[in-house]
Amino acid sequence: MHYGADYNPEQWPEEVWPDDVARMREAGVTMVSLGIFSWARIQPREGEFDFAWLDRVLDLLHEGGIAVDLATATASPPPWASAAYPELLPRDENGAVYWPGSRQQFAPSSPVYRRLAGELVSAVAERYAQHPAVVMWHVNNEYGCHVHADYSDAARDAFRRWLADRYGDVDALNRAWGTDFWSQRYGSFDEVFPPRKAPYSRNPGQMLDFRRFTSDMLLECYLMERDLIRAAGAAQPITTNFMGAFKPADYERWAPHLDVISDDCYPDPNDPEAFRAAAFQRDLVRSFKPETPWLLMEQATNALNWRASNAPKAPGQMAALSAQAIGRGADGILFFQWRQSRAGAEKFHSAMLPHAGTDTRTWREVTALGASLAALPELPAPARGDARVAIVFDWENWWAVEASDHPMNGIDYVAVVQRWYRALHRRHVQVDLVPAARVDDRYDLVLAPLLGLVREADAAALTAFVEGGGHLLAGPYVDVVDEHDRFRDGGFLTQLGGVFGVRLEDFGALVAPDAPDHAPGERFAPFGGPLGGAGSGEPSSVAESTGTLLAEEIHVTDAAVEASFVGGRLTGRPALTRRAHGDGSARYLATVPDERGAQAVVDHLLSIAGVAPVVADLPEHVEVARRGEVVTAINHGDVAERVPLAGVDLVSGATVDGVELAPQERAIVRERAAS
Amino acid sequence: MHYGADYNPEQWPEEVWPDDVARMREAGVTMVSLGIFSWARIQPREGEFDFAWLDRVLDLLHEGGIAVDLATATASPPPWASAAYPELLPRDENGAVYWPGSRQQFAPSSPVYRRLAGELVSAVAERYAQHPAVVMWHVNNEYGCHVHADYSDAARDAFRRWLADRYGDVDALNRAWGTDFWSQRYGSFDEVFPPRKAPYSRNPGQMLDFRRFTSDMLLECYLMERDLIRAAGAAQPITTNFMGAFKPADYERWAPHLDVISDDCYPDPNDPEAFRAAAFQRDLVRSFKPETPWLLMEQATNALNWRASNAPKAPGQMAALSAQAIGRGADGILFFQWRQSRAGAEKFHSAMLPHAGTDTRTWREVTALGASLAALPELPAPARGDARVAIVFDWENWWAVEASDHPMNGIDYVAVVQRWYRALHRRHVQVDLVPAARVDDRYDLVLAPLLGLVREADAAALTAFVEGGGHLLAGPYVDVVDEHDRFRDGGFLTQLGGVFGVRLEDFGALVAPDAPDHAPGERFAPFGGPLGGAGSGEPSSVAESTGTLLAEEIHVTDAAVEASFVGGRLTGRPALTRRAHGDGSARYLATVPDERGAQAVVDHLLSIAGVAPVVADLPEHVEVARRGEVVTAINHGDVAERVPLAGVDLVSGATVDGVELAPQERAIVRERAAS
Amino acid sequence: MHYGADYNPEQWPEEVWPDDVARMREAGVTMVSLGIFSWARIQPREGEFDFAWLDRVLDLLHEGGIAVDLATATASPPPWASAAYPELLPRDENGAVYWPGSRQQFAPSSPVYRRLAGELVSAVAERYAQHPAVVMWHVNNEYGCHVHADYSDAARDAFRRWLADRYGDVDALNRAWGTDFWSQRYGSFDEVFPPRKAPYSRNPGQMLDFRRFTSDMLLECYLMERDLIRAAGAAQPITTNFMGAFKPADYERWAPHLDVISDDCYPDPNDPEAFRAAAFQRDLVRSFKPETPWLLMEQATNALNWRASNAPKAPGQMAALSAQAIGRGADGILFFQWRQSRAGAEKFHSAMLPHAGTDTRTWREVTALGASLAALPELPAPARGDARVAIVFDWENWWAVEASDHPMNGIDYVAVVQRWYRALHRRHVQVDLVPAARVDDRYDLVLAPLLGLVREADAAALTAFVEGGGHLLAGPYVDVVDEHDRFRDGGFLTQLGGVFGVRLEDFGALVAPDAPDHAPGERFAPFGGPLGGAGSGEPSSVAESTGTLLAEEIHVTDAAVEASFVGGRLTGRPALTRRAHGDGSARYLATVPDERGAQAVVDHLLSIAGVAPVVADLPEHVEVARRGEVVTAINHGDVAERVPLAGVDLVSGATVDGVELAPQERAIVRERAAS
Repeated sequence: MHYGADYNPEQWPEEVWPDDVARMREAGVTMVSLGIFSWARIQPREGEFDFAWLDRVLDLLHEGGIAVDLATATASPPPWASAAYPELLPRDENGAVYWPGSRQQFAPSSPVYRRLAGELVSAVAERYAQHPAVVMWHVNNEYGCHVHADYSDAARDAFRRWLADRYGDVDALNRAWGTDFWSQRYGSFDEVFPPRKAPYSRNPGQMLDFRRFTSDMLLECYLMERDLIRAAGAAQPITTNFMGAFKPADYERWAPHLDVISDDCYPDPNDPEAFRAAAFQRDLVRSFKPETPWLLMEQATNALNWRASNAPKAPGQMAALSAQAIGRGADGILFFQWRQSRAGAEKFHSAMLPHAGTDTRTWREVTALGASLAALPELPAPARGDARVAIVFDWENWWAVEASDHPMNGIDYVAVVQRWYRALHRRHVQVDLVPAARVDDRYDLVLAPLLGLVREADAAALTAFVEGGGHLLAGPYVDVVDEHDRFRDGGFLTQLGGVFGVRLEDFGALVAPDAPDHAPGERFAPFGGPLGGAGSGEPSSVAESTGTLLAEEIHVTDAAVEASFVGGRLTGRPALTRRAHGDGSARYLATVPDERGAQAVVDHLLSIAGVAPVVADLPEHVEVARRGEVVTAINHGDVAERVPLAGVDLVSGATVDGVELAPQERAIVRERAAS
Repeated sequence: MHYGADYNPEQWPEEVWPDDVARMREAGVTMVSLGIFSWARIQPREGEFDFAWLDRVLDLLHEGGIAVDLATATASPPPWASAAYPELLPRDENGAVYWPGSRQQFAPSSPVYRRLAGELVSAVAERYAQHPAVVMWHVNNEYGCHVHADYSDAARDAFRRWLADRYGDVDALNRAWGTDFWSQRYGSFDEVFPPRKAPYSRNPGQMLDFRRFTSDMLLECYLMERDLIRAAGAAQPITTNFMGAFKPADYERWAPHLDVISDDCYPDPNDPEAFRAAAFQRDLVRSFKPETPWLLMEQATNALNWRASNAPKAPGQMAALSAQAIGRGADGILFFQWRQSRAGAEKFHSAMLPHAGTDTRTWREVTALGASLAALPELPAPARGDARVAIVFDWENWWAVEASDHPMNGIDYVAVVQRWYRALHRRHVQVDLVPAARVDDRYDLVLAPLLGLVREADAAALTAFVEGGGHLLAGPYVDVVDEHDRFRDGGFLTQLGGVFGVRLEDFGALVAPDAPDHAPGERFAPFGGPLGGAGSGEPSSVAESTGTLLAEEIHVTDAAVEASFVGGRLTGRPALTRRAHGDGSARYLATVPDERGAQAVVDHLLSIAGVAPVVADLPEHVEVARRGEVVTAINHGDVAERVPLAGVDLVSGATVDGVELAPQERAIVRERAAS
Repeated sequence: MHYGADYNPEQWPEEVWPDDVARMREAGVTMVSLGIFSWARIQPREGEFDFAWLDRVLDLLHEGGIAVDLATATASPPPWASAAYPELLPRDENGAVYWPGSRQQFAPSSPVYRRLAGELVSAVAERYAQHPAVVMWHVNNEYGCHVHADYSDAARDAFRRWLADRYGDVDALNRAWGTDFWSQRYGSFDEVFPPRKAPYSRNPGQMLDFRRFTSDMLLECYLMERDLIRAAGAAQPITTNFMGAFKPADYERWAPHLDVISDDCYPDPNDPEAFRAAAFQRDLVRSFKPETPWLLMEQATNALNWRASNAPKAPGQMAALSAQAIGRGADGILFFQWRQSRAGAEKFHSAMLPHAGTDTRTWREVTALGASLAALPELPAPARGDARVAIVFDWENWWAVEASDHPMNGIDYVAVVQRWYRALHRRHVQVDLVPAARVDDRYDLVLAPLLGLVREADAAALTAFVEGGGHLLAGPYVDVVDEHDRFRDGGFLTQLGGVFGVRLEDFGALVAPDAPDHAPGERFAPFGGPLGGAGSGEPSSVAESTGTLLAEEIHVTDAAVEASFVGGRLTGRPALTRRAHGDGSARYLATVPDERGAQAVVDHLLSIAGVAPVVADLPEHVEVARRGEVVTAINHGDVAERVPLAGVDLVSGATVDGVELAPQERAIVRERAAS
């Protein structure tokens, strides 16, 4: 179990460094991420490298027994780079330059940026490949976190090359994008631009490909660095830090290229339900590499600086959220950063060692957590079977459904997915988040909301799942377009209509629930009625629920109706349908239920699929997670709760039969094998 | 009666085209608008035209008996055009380019755009001038709909030329714009720029002229195309599709140059009162060419794609809104578009032939409407006398009153005009919408709200109207500036003060009714009191009404006070005055009444002017419109209503004496001559 | 006592000028500001000056007995200037140009702008230095009012030079800005840019220096003009018009360079409490030059044009606000402008002579005020001792606390300062607004809210103040950073922690009180408890108050707790502490109280410090101000009030013993010496 932080010694006089190491040892630090923003120090001007100071830092850390996750330092080019090569600066869609003075001011597709970054990476990797302190490589930092897309001329040139690679000839591109619409037919790839500011809606195929391109350009930067590190003879694992459900980068496609998944996560202490969004993020990150631990590369010890209001964490909350990460697969807990900065844009961001000193709650909690982690034995890897439920999560669907010019514009894909996630989390059911093509028989129940873009492999996997006895819930807005965001011939639900036994006539947009009061139109589509348990024949009554965003007009061709709309323009029409497939079943839901409705549907599905919670009979604010035979329990509520876990408490080593958890308290228990 | 849609065959394989024609015949289609976005297909590169496919389409349509409204295809230049001539791209006021990837990416004043568009128009017109299928020419498409103004260097150069033409010498421009204010005096036209982003408020004369220029540049494009079509020997009528009350283009000035007025109209199905705004748009469009039918060139069969929420139309609503257009003067009902696209930004836009197929409500309604229109006999043209009421609607006033730096900023000119329109529509009174200079004795009652900019001809027409026995209501904010947005010497109401017998001291801005709750200040100016019927001496009591936006401080010099402010800072001062002129009268209203207040004033005025409804004693949600001896009635409400119309039902051919209309149902009745 | 307005004769035919002078005499005008926007008239093209018309205006005014505050006319460069030298146009942070067409389109650091402006100033000053009408020089106009910062290449070059001057070598800059954060280390000044659009948060040291630079560039323009006026032999006093608490220009640093402070002030008639904000502005302006009168250079006679809603002033309000300025130190009342314009962006802005003519309330009030001012004897200068209370107001703190990346972002510095000011104003206590370094023993009580940036001189002055017997209240967010916005070594409150006897652990951000309803988190931190009167031992009970924005976690090291948090996460912890220093005391407040809380704390402090009101026992809407032995009283309320002032009414000359003030009425009374 790693414990540590980003370490930025260049911000401090060298005299401070020994104190840093001593304090790290006091805090139980085992590993630091070093050099993330050191480019300007390592390479003060082109052609000149200064490693002496970094040598001393590495040696000092190594002598102190602190391992190093060594950064390639390419995240923020130094001022000399953009002064000499202004063409490496990115631009927004209006053509405005992102100038230096902050960080990440580079166009990922810029040849000169790549050359400069490559020279730096090679120099660093060659120098430290064999250094005994270095146990991991940290490529760049939070790729794309600020520059979500680049529209510069470098991007223009690279986009043309990328499209030529993808389509081979321009007629294929014309077909994919449907350029006969609005006279957009291209005569050559050299006529294509990134989707810069335009008079009106831009081509959806172009938009989708530009998102793929943007993710790919960042990934190419990663791959270039990775290859140079390996070329320098380094054998340590390589990572780059993810940011959970981060729209610009399709991490699902990135994950195979990382040796270790690492993730940055900053829940908002103002939000009493933020722990559920954090749990979602952990589960997503874990799902990238099944049965493999990951690292929590960054979190905050206490307050942040970049939200409107940066409240302090509650006492114990930092340890509770750390335990959440461990329980959901993390093998390391690290922070941004070790010592709070004195200057710069993040000086108010909390750190392990606060500017207010060591007589602070933060420092006491940091050292206590270090001691607690040191006491932990090695934990099992996440196991196949930990989660029997999956929600389909897919970047290309995210991009496509949030594009403009839909029946209902302004849909928030992640918010809808997380609503389903929360309903399962409140029932203490463990969940994986995977693309449709990775759905298989490890799951008993799969939810696929807003899966508008269905590739052939997706349809095949979902069909096989249902036919193999799984229970699938999908809809609304499912199986609408192909991978180019085009309708397929033959209407909608062309791939999966048979699985559901349903035909779609109309998407039935509603008015957004949070539209201004004076906006007219229907906002809510109530639905309800007795739901029949699959196979059992027993009706499990469901109270009236509320649908939002869409109220699709569907026709049942070969399915039973489990719930109907009971108000509004679709009164009496099907809202939830069921088609049985042997032991499995496929349900189609024609609307996006609100929070209470999602809970009702989930309760119904859990009952049908026979999915058990990790621990039963717990209140909603107690969280549990399974990691092989180890169960982590955390009390996020305001009063103490008892959790019926029996086994060995891995921190204390004691045998327990039920644990009592004060608010923000947590337990990590190796369960006694069921007798 | 034309029936049809935009037809974009290039989006489909040629094998689909015969099916298109067969389905068109099934639907009763008589005419399609062809080639609107076909530039890239017709001219794949500069100097090369490909008409073979278009020949085949035209022949196929002609063989199928489908007439063609042939587009000039200039609405969206192909990628090769902007690649070769980037100077034809428009720019916003910040200098940001509108790039390709959408549509309409051309600067209307660009010489190279005009050259390329002209070459295309000539080629198309020369080829098809004599084609028997072609019955109309469709110039460009929705001029200016996305690029409301262009600030590029092409616009800069053209603006300078336009100003030189308008003013002759720069001193005249300096006088017109009042450039001695803020040291803006120009030494030559070459120092003038379009009103690009500036430190603060821009010169109002410049702003107004730039709006005129912008409208004129688009009109010049139209005129160029029209002239080239004629030069190619084509004799068919020529149109371009309007968009109702569209601020960037002064259609009143355009209308004489169109052979047929055509209009695109997209009411929002979410809004239960949208039918009144649609009626307003029909009446405006009809008013452009008195006593002449027009075409509904575009509407949607069902849902759109570009609003936040694109709800489906209610069952029957499409036919109801079509009947509204016919009743208010349309001789054709067309849609965007024939076959729903598979790709592109508008693929979710409904069409005559839905992507969901023919087993859909949309297709059933489309074919039913086609059959119903085919049964209609030829209708009379709109007649002089159909409308005895006019509201003054004037683009230059719209532009001027919504410019910055007024007593009350943020006034919505169209919203105020439509409020008056709704009050008349709810009383089933037919209305024309005309500029002041077109007011004449065909009207009994004229309303002129927010007529701040009064030219000499405007004042003369309104004065003559009143002196000829008409009843005029104007105000607030009337007769404030001249055509250069300058105050005239001698205060306000310099042209019309004598007509009203009123002097204005202060505009008395109120706080906007919808300002944030915490904004201090008076928002409402209640007014009321007994209103004397003109000439009759009878008081027609009016309950207290609410004024908004402005509560002007006026002094009566030669008029009676019909209503006074009864609250706020103007308590006791005149709100509504009357000056008799023989049988006529001129009223000045010192505030913008709210919805209820506008209704009270309108009821009072209708009584005074003796204006009768088209049909009496109908509920507000039943709409009636007169077109010569034909009356159309539509039930927009939720329950069936009886309409006391006697005559021949033109769809069924039956003689009726009263019609029963279910919700969304309509009747088109040739009235029995009054016995 | 000056009385007059901006006079823009070039907007009118020469025939109007004699009428202007005659009307000025009728209105009691004594001085006009002439030529502010006359550049284009004075210099119609480069190298050519036309003074003939200006000669005639000056002579006419002089003959009419009207003195002239002569403008240098540099505020708005004429079109020829930017046509010939586009590089003088400023740019925003996105690189967009501010084009001509409005005013103030110049980059203050542009060498060519400075050359052109300098040539104009010299020409004007040389011609009129000895003209008998000229009694004052008016440099430029409202420097920076629209272009709050310039990011052009001219600014880039000047910023580099300014930084080189400030820091000498680039390593000093690197240390000051903490450029080791995010790899921002500069190799030379030529690598630095203004803080243009960047991917993310910009360096706070750079931001702060750029604000200093921006203020300095404007000041350099002023100083250049001042020096050229003097070089031309002119001996009259020189001013430029301030705009109260105007963020872009650090007037505290400017004030020593002005011979006379002049100020523009436009309270919103819609806001019934605007008079308190106006009083704040007068007191701030007076505080720039202690014991020295200033000029109200611009106000409006009635409505404005640039707010959303430009309501008229209430009857009498213009005179009431004029009296407020006089009572708070003004020796002149001037307006924008003399004659209302016929054209241009400000034609709806009221003036002394309205466009509606002289039969208007505005003209009657203007002439009445002129007569009233003419009757006034010379008033004493503001005296040391008029104000015994100061609030610390400091531009650099304003800039620093409103920068991004703080615990609580979005804090409005002026709003917080004004909240404290209002609490004192409601108690009729006179206040100075001064930077911390100007705090001295003339004050009994000093408030220092949000004084995050504490220089050594600031700390020394505040410490000396307390040790000399003064009473100080500071907090929250005090003594956090140094002048480079860096934390100091050793935590927070490193300079003043000993004075307060308090240590700070955490800033405790709350959620903004006006955040959207759905935003979670604590917004309010109630605090209360018995407050002990300093020295007296008497508890003065204070009801529960509400803290906002921050609820700091502080530790008392050597202080008493006067109030504690009574709700939320800090329940029971100190909210207000007191450390006695001989007769003095230092209090630390850990939160920003709401309006009621600030009043409670102020009442407590006034009692402790023994500060008396100017006049006791008045309602909150009656305002009083002291200027030496003269007291001005104004009734801003809706009903008549009696004010117990005894002495000589300086307008009527009558001896009074108590004055009765109708709404908007005022009295200026030389107090009878206390017997």
